[in-house]
Parts: sequence; C-alpha cells; structure tokens
Amino acid sequence: MCEGKSAIVLSVGTELTEGIIQDSHIRYLSSELTSLGFSVCRGVQIPDNASLFREELARAAREAALVIVTGGLGPTTDDLTREIVAESAGVSLEFHQEVWEGLVERFKGRRISDANRKQASAPKGFRLVPNPNGTAPGFHGGIGGALVVALPGPPTELRPMFTESIIPLISERFGGASSEELLWGTALMVPESNLEEALREARHGEVRWGTRVDEDRIVFSLRGGDPAAREACFAALAASLGPTRIRRGETRPALLLTDALLRRGEMLVTAESCTGGLIGKYMTDLPGSSRVYWGGYVSYSNAAKTGMLDVDARELASFGAVSEEAVTGMARGALSRSGAGISVAVSGIAGPEGGSSEKPVGTVWIAVAMRGKGVSSRLFHFTGSRDMVRRRTAVAAMLFAEAQLLERDFLDSRAKW
Amino acid sequence: MCEGKSAIVLSVGTELTEGIIQDSHIRYLSSELTSLGFSVCRGVQIPDNASLFREELARAAREAALVIVTGGLGPTTDDLTREIVAESAGVSLEFHQEVWEGLVERFKGRRISDANRKQASAPKGFRLVPNPNGTAPGFHGGIGGALVVALPGPPTELRPMFTESIIPLISERFGGASSEELLWGTALMVPESNLEEALREARHGEVRWGTRVDEDRIVFSLRGGDPAAREACFAALAASLGPTRIRRGETRPALLLTDALLRRGEMLVTAESCTGGLIGKYMTDLPGSSRVYWGGYVSYSNAAKTGMLDVDARELASFGAVSEEAVTGMARGALSRSGAGISVAVSGIAGPEGGSSEKPVGTVWIAVAMRGKGVSSRLFHFTGSRDMVRRRTAVAAMLFAEAQLLERDFLDSRAKW
Repeated sequence: MCEGKSAIVLSVGTELTEGIIQDSHIRYLSSELTSLGFSVCRGVQIPDNASLFREELARAAREAALVIVTGGLGPTTDDLTREIVAESAGVSLEFHQEVWEGLVERFKGRRISDANRKQASAPKGFRLVPNPNGTAPGFHGGIGGALVVALPGPPTELRPMFTESIIPLISERFGGASSEELLWGTALMVPESNLEEALREARHGEVRWGTRVDEDRIVFSLRGGDPAAREACFAALAASLGPTRIRRGETRPALLLTDALLRRGEMLVTAESCTGGLIGKYMTDLPGSSRVYWGGYVSYSNAAKTGMLDVDARELASFGAVSEEAVTGMARGALSRSGAGISVAVSGIAGPEGGSSEKPVGTVWIAVAMRGKGVSSRLFHFTGSRDMVRRRTAVAAMLFAEAQLLERDFLDSRAKW
Repeated sequence: MCEGKSAIVLSVGTELTEGIIQDSHIRYLSSELTSLGFSVCRGVQIPDNASLFREELARAAREAALVIVTGGLGPTTDDLTREIVAESAGVSLEFHQEVWEGLVERFKGRRISDANRKQASAPKGFRLVPNPNGTAPGFHGGIGGALVVALPGPPTELRPMFTESIIPLISERFGGASSEELLWGTALMVPESNLEEALREARHGEVRWGTRVDEDRIVFSLRGGDPAAREACFAALAASLGPTRIRRGETRPALLLTDALLRRGEMLVTAESCTGGLIGKYMTDLPGSSRVYWGGYVSYSNAAKTGMLDVDARELASFGAVSEEAVTGMARGALSRSGAGISVAVSGIAGPEGGSSEKPVGTVWIAVAMRGKGVSSRLFHFTGSRDMVRRRTAVAAMLFAEAQLLERDFLDSRAKW
C-alpha cells in the first residue's frame, strides 16, 4: 500500500503499451515529485481502453494522496481522460465557452473540427490548468480523498504546466520542499557506477541524491539534510572523484572550455583522429561557438595526418598513429596551420578492432599546444564500447585544454574514465 | 480487465520511482510482446518495497496470461524479486550449486561476497534462464494460471535473454507471430509527424505499424495483414515520402554512404561548417570506417574556409559563407587538398541566431565534388532547433553523396526535412 505523502502517475496511450513510443512522463514526474517530498508508489502505463483506465484510476485514487494522469486529452475518440475522470468523480462534463473561444482563436485560418469541442470541456467542479503551449487545458479536482491532476501528453505542454501550475498547487496543498534544500552538481564523464559508489561513501546525514545521465555528463542533486551536510557531501565527492570532473551547478565540458577560451581571449583548433569530428561537434553544439572555435582537422587516415597536419611520415611509421609523437605532431601542425591560439589533438584506438597487447582498445593520446608555450601530452586508458571510448576521449580532451588555458593541474583521480 | 493473450510488465526499482533512471524495459518488452501478438494491458514501475511488490505481482498474475518482472535480481537486500516470486507461488527458494560455481568462476580473482549466494537461488520448481552477460540467471514458472518470467535489470543482460530464451518459450506456450509477418523499414530523418501521416494514408487492410525513433532515423515495422498488403503499404510510403529517405530493413545514412563508397572503391573527405564535425562523427561511428573515410576539414570560421580549403576570400565576402559559391569552393578545396575521390561540403545557418529574412535559420547549402566529375550543389531549408538542423544537414549530406556515387537521382519529396 502507498502511505503518507504518496503519489501515483498514470501515463495513458496505446502507443505506450504497444512500445511505439517511449514514455518520459513517469520519470520526469517521479523525479519532480520525489524532490517535492512525495513517495511515488507506482508509475503505470495503460492503453486507451475505458475499462482498464477506469479500474486503474479508481485504484490509484483509493491508494495515493495525489494522482497525476498524463495523456488522453486530445480531440479523438481514443482520448478518454475527460470522460473517465468525470465518471470516476461522479460528475458530468462541463463545457467552457472561454476555452472554446481560445481554441477557435488559436486555429484562426485553419479548419477546427467539432471533435475539438471536446477539448473545451472538463469534469464539473474541476479547476482548469492553463496550457500556454497547446490546445487542451489540463484540470484538477478531487476523487475520494485524492487530488487528481490531468495533463496533456506532449512533454512541451506538460512540463511547463507542471512547473508553473501544479508545483504551486501541490506545495500549497501538501507542503513543499523549497529549492534551497537542493545543491546541484555535474559529474563529467564519470562512470555511473563510480559516481554512485562515491555518492554512497560521501553521504552525510539526511542528504539524498538523484542523478540524470546525459551523453557527456551526469547531473546530480543533493537534497534534504542541512546546507552544511550537503556542502560536506559535495566536498567529499570532489575529493574522491577529482575537482576536474566534479563541478558545481549544471554545466557541460564544451561550455567549460568555451568559458576558459573567452576568459583568455583565445580561439581553438581541433585535430581529431579516433573521435572523427566529435570534439568539433560538441564545441559547436553551443550557439555562438564561432567566437571561440576556429575550426578543425579530422585527420582520420595516416595520409590525412601527414597531408593536413605535416605529421612526420617516418615518425608515424616507426611509432604508429597512436603515439605521443603522432599526437604532438598533430597538435603542432594544427596550431601552425591555423589562426588559432590553442590546439587540442587526439589519437587513439576506439575499437572494437585495432587493439593489441601493447596498445589495447581504449588507449588514447591527447596533446594540447599553445602559442609560445609548447605542447603537453598525456596517455589515457578508457573503458567501454567504441561509442563510450570516443565520448570519454572528447570530454577528456576538452577538460585537458581547459586546464592548460587556466594553468590548473589536470589531476588524475580515483574514478576511472 | 486484461483479456485473451495478455501480458503485464513489472519494472522494479526505487531508482525508477524516484526518477533517477529512465525505465527502458517497458517500452522494449511492450514492443516485442505486441509483435508476438500479445496485448499489453499494463506496464508498471514500482519501488523496491515488499508489500507494494507482493500486491502488484498478485494482481498481475490474476489478470494476465504472461507477467514479466524486470530488475530486483541483484545481490543486495533491496533486491526482492526471488523472495516475492517464491512467496507468491507458495514455494521456497532453492539453491543451485551449478549456478554458484559459475558465479565463483566469473568472479575469479575478485572478492565474491556471501550476498552473491542469493543470486544462485530461484523459486523451487521454476526453470532457470541462462544469462550469458551477467551474474544472475533469470527464471520462469507458474503463479496461478499465469506464466511469470523474471529477468535482470541491465538491458545488456535482459535483451539477449529475452530474445534467446523467452521468445522461444512464449511462442511455444502461446503460439507466436512468425517473423514473416513483419516488414522492417527505415525512414531517414523524416519528421515523426510526417511519417505518421504517411503511414496512416498508406495503410492497407490489416497492416499495423510500430516505430522506434533514433537520432538519425526512424525504424518502422509493418505487421499483420498479408504480405501483399504490407508490400503495398511500403510502396505507398516510399512513393509519398521519396525512395531516397524510405529504405527497406534497418539501416543508417552513414552505412548507406559507406556501402556506396565501398562499391565504388572511393574514399570520402568532408568539409563541414555548420555541422562542426558531425558528418565525420557519423561516418566514424561505424567500426572499420578507415576503409572509406579519409578525413575532414571543419572550416567553421571564414578564416578556416580560406586557410584550410582555399575558398576565394572575395567570393566569401560578396556572397557570404552560406552560399553556393562558398560551399562549392569548400567541396573543391577539400578534394584537391586530400587524397580522397569524393568530397561533401556543407555550410548553413543552424541557429538560433544568425538568420536573416533572405537566409533564415535552416538555410543550408550542400555540395558534392568527385574527381573528374565536377561539383553538384543544392539548397535546403531545414526546420527545427539548432541540433535538429545540424542532424538533418548531416543526413542530407550523406544521402546526397550516396546518390552522386551511385548516379541516382536525389529526389525531392513531399516530406519536409
């Protein structure tokens, strides 16, 4: 049984239970609700089927203090949320003239069908939830002892509605967790299991944590406990995983390097082998990257390394493409051929083929050259799939360049890459 | 109520209901089960909580013919699946010596704790499901009239176990949908809503469809109906969205270009501006890409376009970086500076800034040059965010180069990019 300040999320749609689309509401709402101090005792996906829906909603309203229903607010006959919620609450549907006028306004010049009239109605006695980004408003009201909230399915509509209308509503109703109780941090390319272990070891008092995993970072939150406990937890984490890769707030490696380039007034040139353009891609993901990114060389083949970057062909032949000699040659060549002030070069074995006992898959050399400051290089051993090795390489290269620009140590750390 | 050949998926873990990680099992299993002719009447995420788990499993086993439980097979006290399944089936746990020996073998040289002993046990009378990629085997057996299958949480373990052991098991038990009933296709960078509309229009008879959206493609399946109806549906789709972007089977744009390069025995060089290295990244995502990918120039700044690729500085000044003159100059420069036989160049406005009334965000020029064959160029107008414009640009560039290599028309189509 669900107990206390409990919540259940129902995500409705046959496209979910047929596996056609991936539900993202349960995770999003579970994370938000957990932050607000709720215990989420169930997240349920059901098809557009009246009897399954009716049964599931009745059960949820019996068991939890808060029930959030997502989806089923469109104009088609498959969209059942209004009818089922009204029926479960024992009320009829009520037509809202002002919502209808808003819909007509929104459709101006395009045909609006009678089916859309349905989107202007809501269970009688329920309050409407404005939807600035779509046609259908949401609504909330009581079923038995539970507060039931219905929100539309598109994430671009649901998320702002949840943030702007529902968080204030449920914070008032159930008491909220204020945002000061949170401390955000970012782990840059630290393996999830390493971060989890470090978080467990770093735990102080009542501090709880959550994580969101992206391609190049894990954003984590420390919540609960007192501010000193959260700070102590963060400090322990940075000490165990290294200050280079644990940062305060939300950030990305490309943004850290961009900031360092702006601070030093330098332009970057990249010279990439195994990453094939990924570092350039990350740097130019950010709008306005032309202020700091000059361009890059993807010297994938050996012919490209010598042809584009004047890497010494004899050195390449004797030391191989994955060597300190090759990567420093690439960094020097990129700097001297370009108009940039700093270059970063990578060469490695991303796998799955191409490894040897001497240079196994995951062996990567990275070098950074700056005008008037020479070249620094470093050997890495990354783990994981081809994709993972390439992403770790790109992130390490950006952090290495950042450290060189800011004249900071690029510390090794306990955490594996 | 669930009816007929019905299934329920239970995904267990507090990290799910706290929103720390995104469940992917419900979608995967729902899609597979739907293909096998099951009607999935519920997908449920619950925390590691014995009473919630017990209740949910009992309800599922009462309602559905097949229940799949994922997660909760680890070695910690939070992992409850073995105990709860045994209890619900009214049996005790049974220790499997051969599984334990396999575990010890797997851990060779590392400490194995007593907690792992638990992973060698299963509900008495249940059959073990081998797990080639992890420590914990799965198991299956009956609870009431339902077949209950328990599988471990990591997708790299669950998915092969499902494919290799569970599909044969449930096909035998419940009758399968043979693979001949399916036709797979790929839509390359067709907006999801366009594909859905086209699929609705192309529908023939009893053909149903499912989709899986990736970064650079949507894999779709046509199932049900007779083979002729599926073929007619596929043909209608290709006619409406264009044969360049609707392909049979599962494929990726980088793979199509790689195959064309291998067939023609050519190496590719890229010259990228707005995509910043993304085309190179896609080409080198594939292992063994060094057979076809020479390297690339990321000529992001104008200085890089003239310095790296000899683009005429006066033309650049008078026509701008996003122009036919600039992009054909980039394609010619990349070809003449490299050892490759074909070049592809892109220059465009990815946004969100940098657009004008004459060249709005999404304006992109693409050019392909081949030795002895001159240059072809084309203007595109892509929609969407910066990230979307960049991905559409990269995919269009790869398909344009493929068409030039194979001397095929690069048709325009009804579908927007």
